[in-house]
Amino acid sequence: MSDRIAAEQEPAAGAEDSGRPAAQLVPRFTGQGYADEDLAARRRWVEERTGTRLDHVGRHSVSGEEMRGNVENPIGAAQVPLGVAGPLAIQGEYARGVFYVPLALTEGAVVRSYERGMIVLTRAGGAVARLSADENRVAPVFRFDGVAEAREFCLRLEELLPEVRAAAEATTRHGRLLRLEPRPLGRAGMVNFCYSTGDAHGMNMIVKATESACELLVARGAAGRYTIFSGMDSEKRASGSLLGGGKGKRVVAGARLPARLVRAYLHTTPAELHEVWEATLLGHLQAGALGYNGQYANGLAALFIACGQDVGNIANSAVGITHAEVTPEGDLYASVTLPSLTVATVGGGTGGGTARECLEMLGCAGPGGAPKLAEIVAATLLAGELSMGAALASGEFVLAHETYGRNRPPGPQEPPGPAVTGEPEASAPPPKASSPAAPPGPEAAG
Amino acid sequence: MSDRIAAEQEPAAGAEDSGRPAAQLVPRFTGQGYADEDLAARRRWVEERTGTRLDHVGRHSVSGEEMRGNVENPIGAAQVPLGVAGPLAIQGEYARGVFYVPLALTEGAVVRSYERGMIVLTRAGGAVARLSADENRVAPVFRFDGVAEAREFCLRLEELLPEVRAAAEATTRHGRLLRLEPRPLGRAGMVNFCYSTGDAHGMNMIVKATESACELLVARGAAGRYTIFSGMDSEKRASGSLLGGGKGKRVVAGARLPARLVRAYLHTTPAELHEVWEATLLGHLQAGALGYNGQYANGLAALFIACGQDVGNIANSAVGITHAEVTPEGDLYASVTLPSLTVATVGGGTGGGTARECLEMLGCAGPGGAPKLAEIVAATLLAGELSMGAALASGEFVLAHETYGRNRPPGPQEPPGPAVTGEPEASAPPPKASSPAAPPGPEAAG
Amino acid sequence: MSDRIAAEQEPAAGAEDSGRPAAQLVPRFTGQGYADEDLAARRRWVEERTGTRLDHVGRHSVSGEEMRGNVENPIGAAQVPLGVAGPLAIQGEYARGVFYVPLALTEGAVVRSYERGMIVLTRAGGAVARLSADENRVAPVFRFDGVAEAREFCLRLEELLPEVRAAAEATTRHGRLLRLEPRPLGRAGMVNFCYSTGDAHGMNMIVKATESACELLVARGAAGRYTIFSGMDSEKRASGSLLGGGKGKRVVAGARLPARLVRAYLHTTPAELHEVWEATLLGHLQAGALGYNGQYANGLAALFIACGQDVGNIANSAVGITHAEVTPEGDLYASVTLPSLTVATVGGGTGGGTARECLEMLGCAGPGGAPKLAEIVAATLLAGELSMGAALASGEFVLAHETYGRNRPPGPQEPPGPAVTGEPEASAPPPKASSPAAPPGPEAAG
Amino acid sequence: MSDRIAAEQEPAAGAEDSGRPAAQLVPRFTGQGYADEDLAARRRWVEERTGTRLDHVGRHSVSGEEMRGNVENPIGAAQVPLGVAGPLAIQGEYARGVFYVPLALTEGAVVRSYERGMIVLTRAGGAVARLSADENRVAPVFRFDGVAEAREFCLRLEELLPEVRAAAEATTRHGRLLRLEPRPLGRAGMVNFCYSTGDAHGMNMIVKATESACELLVARGAAGRYTIFSGMDSEKRASGSLLGGGKGKRVVAGARLPARLVRAYLHTTPAELHEVWEATLLGHLQAGALGYNGQYANGLAALFIACGQDVGNIANSAVGITHAEVTPEGDLYASVTLPSLTVATVGGGTGGGTARECLEMLGCAGPGGAPKLAEIVAATLLAGELSMGAALASGEFVLAHETYGRNRPPGPQEPPGPAVTGEPEASAPPPKASSPAAPPGPEAAG
Repeated sequence: MSDRIAAEQEPAAGAEDSGRPAAQLVPRFTGQGYADEDLAARRRWVEERTGTRLDHVGRHSVSGEEMRGNVENPIGAAQVPLGVAGPLAIQGEYARGVFYVPLALTEGAVVRSYERGMIVLTRAGGAVARLSADENRVAPVFRFDGVAEAREFCLRLEELLPEVRAAAEATTRHGRLLRLEPRPLGRAGMVNFCYSTGDAHGMNMIVKATESACELLVARGAAGRYTIFSGMDSEKRASGSLLGGGKGKRVVAGARLPARLVRAYLHTTPAELHEVWEATLLGHLQAGALGYNGQYANGLAALFIACGQDVGNIANSAVGITHAEVTPEGDLYASVTLPSLTVATVGGGTGGGTARECLEMLGCAGPGGAPKLAEIVAATLLAGELSMGAALASGEFVLAHETYGRNRPPGPQEPPGPAVTGEPEASAPPPKASSPAAPPGPEAAG
Repeated sequence: MSDRIAAEQEPAAGAEDSGRPAAQLVPRFTGQGYADEDLAARRRWVEERTGTRLDHVGRHSVSGEEMRGNVENPIGAAQVPLGVAGPLAIQGEYARGVFYVPLALTEGAVVRSYERGMIVLTRAGGAVARLSADENRVAPVFRFDGVAEAREFCLRLEELLPEVRAAAEATTRHGRLLRLEPRPLGRAGMVNFCYSTGDAHGMNMIVKATESACELLVARGAAGRYTIFSGMDSEKRASGSLLGGGKGKRVVAGARLPARLVRAYLHTTPAELHEVWEATLLGHLQAGALGYNGQYANGLAALFIACGQDVGNIANSAVGITHAEVTPEGDLYASVTLPSLTVATVGGGTGGGTARECLEMLGCAGPGGAPKLAEIVAATLLAGELSMGAALASGEFVLAHETYGRNRPPGPQEPPGPAVTGEPEASAPPPKASSPAAPPGPEAAG
Repeated sequence: MSDRIAAEQEPAAGAEDSGRPAAQLVPRFTGQGYADEDLAARRRWVEERTGTRLDHVGRHSVSGEEMRGNVENPIGAAQVPLGVAGPLAIQGEYARGVFYVPLALTEGAVVRSYERGMIVLTRAGGAVARLSADENRVAPVFRFDGVAEAREFCLRLEELLPEVRAAAEATTRHGRLLRLEPRPLGRAGMVNFCYSTGDAHGMNMIVKATESACELLVARGAAGRYTIFSGMDSEKRASGSLLGGGKGKRVVAGARLPARLVRAYLHTTPAELHEVWEATLLGHLQAGALGYNGQYANGLAALFIACGQDVGNIANSAVGITHAEVTPEGDLYASVTLPSLTVATVGGGTGGGTARECLEMLGCAGPGGAPKLAEIVAATLLAGELSMGAALASGEFVLAHETYGRNRPPGPQEPPGPAVTGEPEASAPPPKASSPAAPPGPEAAG
Repeated sequence: MSDRIAAEQEPAAGAEDSGRPAAQLVPRFTGQGYADEDLAARRRWVEERTGTRLDHVGRHSVSGEEMRGNVENPIGAAQVPLGVAGPLAIQGEYARGVFYVPLALTEGAVVRSYERGMIVLTRAGGAVARLSADENRVAPVFRFDGVAEAREFCLRLEELLPEVRAAAEATTRHGRLLRLEPRPLGRAGMVNFCYSTGDAHGMNMIVKATESACELLVARGAAGRYTIFSGMDSEKRASGSLLGGGKGKRVVAGARLPARLVRAYLHTTPAELHEVWEATLLGHLQAGALGYNGQYANGLAALFIACGQDVGNIANSAVGITHAEVTPEGDLYASVTLPSLTVATVGGGTGGGTARECLEMLGCAGPGGAPKLAEIVAATLLAGELSMGAALASGEFVLAHETYGRNRPPGPQEPPGPAVTGEPEASAPPPKASSPAAPPGPEAAG
């Protein structure tokens, strides 16, 4: 055990309630224990108490000290297999060109499926992507004696806005208070404080700014008791209000895919894809779902883990809407709308290690990268939606997972010889058109 | 470039639409390219095309071959800082004893916050955890000529159930078809196929089983066209129907915390905590949120990444309900209810590397571990909810993030010397009681 | 003032809090005051206190005594203008033939719009309607010491079901307890008690039965404290769980409309109608709506008021899903799905007066009528959805309301001479096809 | 049959599809048939075809001509029993004083329940009511070639706002365009046009204004195809976005009730009421409900029918939030928040007959009355929530419905002699405190 363990951190005997088994605290170290030897000591301590070996956990490539600010009680790093999918051509305002996208995950067939969607998007000229809003919010709740006082407070906020803004913005170099959205609820006043946050995720930044603004309101006598989070902001949770935006970036990506490309790469037709879209949208309605999508959560998780994003934000970022239409010319127009996508390229987990490298692969690392990253995320999700929808439409979904997943039937069989590329090949069977339930060709990737 | 790259995978000139820049496919390898040298070759290929260095990405501890079935086009692994929180005493049916929980994430103060909640739970005798349902579902949609035919199909399913069950279960050794829930929607018949899946996540398993059942229905003439997913199952998305359960394990965790422990460890009172619960629950309602919780997504993400779970399942798993009550004796009773938690201890990403080690830390690796893991997840989330709620109630939320996060104010200052333990210390300032907005003591962890 | 006013009902002086103006109770009468003279006396009392004349209110056609059980403190009746729409051909299991539907409402153009939809349905052979479930539920909540006890209770319900059923059904001649759906939530046990209720709405019946069952559970020691409503049943409110059914009748209505009928009667095309369906469905998603429909609430309100239904049940009945598809032949298939429609033909307000007459118009009055009424409601809503959708698709929506509504532009103009029939006429302008925004012909009804 | 029936309206033989039974149109009359003799002729026509007698339907007190603009094909009026509840003291900005509220419905015990809530509110000094927003909206959807064009349109709206406003407001004397809220969704641009509408409901007014604005946008080349409703506005349907307001008036009502009044009138305690609130709120969450309330739909339906409101608007108006708190002094603070209440005092069905009389009873008829009516609605719903919640807390709910409803047990029994007043009487049994499940006293009204 390292001698850097701070002796006084061991709980004194009797600290627990009598009659309960002693449960030891994780050991404390001077300086919080971010030295590599501290990590090793902590691992050994865990190994002893849990009877396990933590070999893999200890084989991380960034130093413990670099983890400071990202994690406490560090013992190493979790490793998540990382694949690359592409090429993905994007015509965004910020993301322009061809991208190869890092995806960290442990579900077979997913990278292959995204890759297929990316290739067809690229062959069609690329996904167009656009941001239409970029903000974040914190919604404290203020409590009053009665409904009249709560309403009065909400009305008074308008005149206090300049002072409130000054107090909030004094705490941050990057955050800007855009507006206040007061909504009385009974005798409480809930208020969205809406900010622009630059390239940072910004929650810590704007929570601090909002607390400063709240204290100003208390000092001015406008408010008394408050709680800094009311939940109305929908940080890291799914809610109907996210569809209107406000929790991150509102971004869309769309593309027109000629019928022949849909047929060649996706093994289906625009009409079949639209039919699946329509049928599954009704299934979402039947389930009382928020928004509609095939699998945003998958793509978001893989990108967020790879790129050092705050993975808990999947909960809000995955609320969005996919649309697949047949154009009058018989082509497909598909789009994704992400009203509340939370991404960052500075702060949090973005600064080093594998996350930094993945952001660099996308040309998004550091200041200025967040809007570009948002466009890439949207285009990536569009690729996933296309491929997933096509696998359902063509009936190839199960086969694809059989081919690439861990659940392969037992026996000596191997994945099919010719790699699944998504690229149409001379040897490929003709795209099926008659029935989405017919057996798929051997090269399917869903 | 590795000579194992399959030459024929390079897209032929002219494969793209004319006038568009050539975008190369990620190189193909014989045997899909899981040899470590294939990973290295792929990395070099990416480095050349994106102008980056992938040093960290390449320093993974599991072999490329072990990634087969988890990812395609592998280039290495993403690393996520891993901390440990505990002790967490649990009185479950499956999880019994004291646990130290691995959490992978990049947000400062979170591990410390969970740790605080775990310690107070442990000091109070531990969290009680229980499962009340354990199933998973797939919901295909069948299309018919009209509403009468769709209804007829739904009625007929009852008599066909034995045949359907036989067809489904013939494809799997572990899945059991529990029941069918048909719900006609217009002229479509949507049907929940509800399964028990043992210790596996089981989606691939039950999708395959359901496809077999669907083919049986087609062969019997009961149905014609179908799509294997309707979205009604709510896999990897948030929906109201998840609150009723059916997508994974329904698990609860709860604990009674004496007022003195709340005061000593959480720096607040049961009444203040309840008040925050109530105020923020109303904020969730105002936002049109599904369920209510402070930050399930955070804890789920950290546990899922550490333990090799399918991280996209955060979207459904994070729909749940936290409750904080004051008992007649003035103590706190707090609980979390997770109606649709998707966890696994076999298959997917659970078999090796850091994930396996983390599961072993919890005594959950391999067959038989899933119910135990579910109870641990619930108890961990309960700890997080308590600590988060307390930080809001005591007004210490911002300070905690200032202390541990990356957004520390510039300057030579250091985190406070005495580590934040959550353990009450002689030097700690007296717990504040008067106002939740008052400045917190220096050792706060929210 | 009638001498039947019970003198002792006047509040004693000093009954109010001091310093507050005396506010008199509505006068009390012997036997609760249902004699016509009591109604008149009450009216006069109200007139005196409010300075109004209640001439219309007093001109009701049913006796006061017949209102007993429907209202307290009666002063007369509200009158709502009643129109008739039809013919509506229905091919249901219970409703078979041509119907003329009474609609009570005060919004110009709505009857005309429903009529148009009914005519085109009838010309196409009628709406097919089917029920697939018929039940109602009450969901009490039981409270326990902890999560383990709540779960235990939920498990134990299975063995107690026979006793519970006996206790519940002993209180009613018509209600049958179908099953229990227990769902632990923290340390509470919420349980859906699911009943069939015959032709009655049945809430009072099944609440009473459930209370009896709850008392049995308390007597058996299985439960302690409970509240008879938890809200989980979604009576008279909108919720995601309604989409799965359980609160009333699950009923669908659908029809295939040849393109030429769509063009002739609805002035649009199947493709245009589908396009409007799709666009507005996305608008619903964007709004975080439950289900999707154009205007169920309108039709439900008009039918419910006419037929003596419990109008508060609009809140749950209006949660449903409309679908409009283009068939491969280019025709339109449209359907409505009402998962939780609450209608009755015995009890409540269905027994006399105008409600009874309206139910008789539909051949639904009395025992046996409820499933038929449900099919008629569904077919009527389908008619409304078609006409509303068509008005949007053809751009005639505003003109229709201009023509029939109260907001007619000032001036001597009159509604157009030839009545708007929905029936294509020789003099009608050709159906427009080029643009849905072009000025509509003079006979539009939206 | 009246000779005013326009002969040419009978469908020509052969107008139907061959082989289908002829279904006759409802007869047409010159001038649309609003003369009383036309109504009578139409009734006779319906009677002949349906084999019924429409005696009650024909006994309406307003002339047929007065129904023009409210209904087509009129045959008379539906009558709904009308009771009066009060006294209800309100301290609003618009509604100040004591009110007696007309309620039209057919569910026994409801008027008595609301009355009880009103009395206790009045004894406590009245309900405080406030409006915090007053607007209505229409949300057309504009379609574009791609996501970039849709986004461009949304951005361009800002510069076009003055022109758009001029075009919209040129069509109306009362409507004012407050702002535009554009939200791109894929390649569509959805835009909330937000208006103030004075005392009118205003949908027809603002739809017309919005159509004019849309035509301006088309003429300017900013947009091409559009549909006037996208559904994003949530008119007459339930959605999460309603909780943020915008569809009608945002109004709150609240009151502090001393514990002794709660005990005397409601037979419970603030703590018990809060406990029921909390338990049932969790039931709403479990059901995936929008907002939370005990029975807004009931009160809204009764008031809307009585006062000539558009009853279909219950669907949006019933989305709101009830809150019941225990104050530090042990009293009850209860409130209702209605974010999207749609009421009117001019136009629609408000101008004559029983509706006008009911509005006059409330002092709300005609211009200037709408905000007052909104406050009265909120205070009435608060009364209902209190009484309903108390009936659940005290366990008296079933007894109240037994006493007043139609489902009284068979036999010669009569409602209990002493009327249920809600007023505490000397003979009343002591309020029960021990258990909410104990048998209630004989005078309960829930």
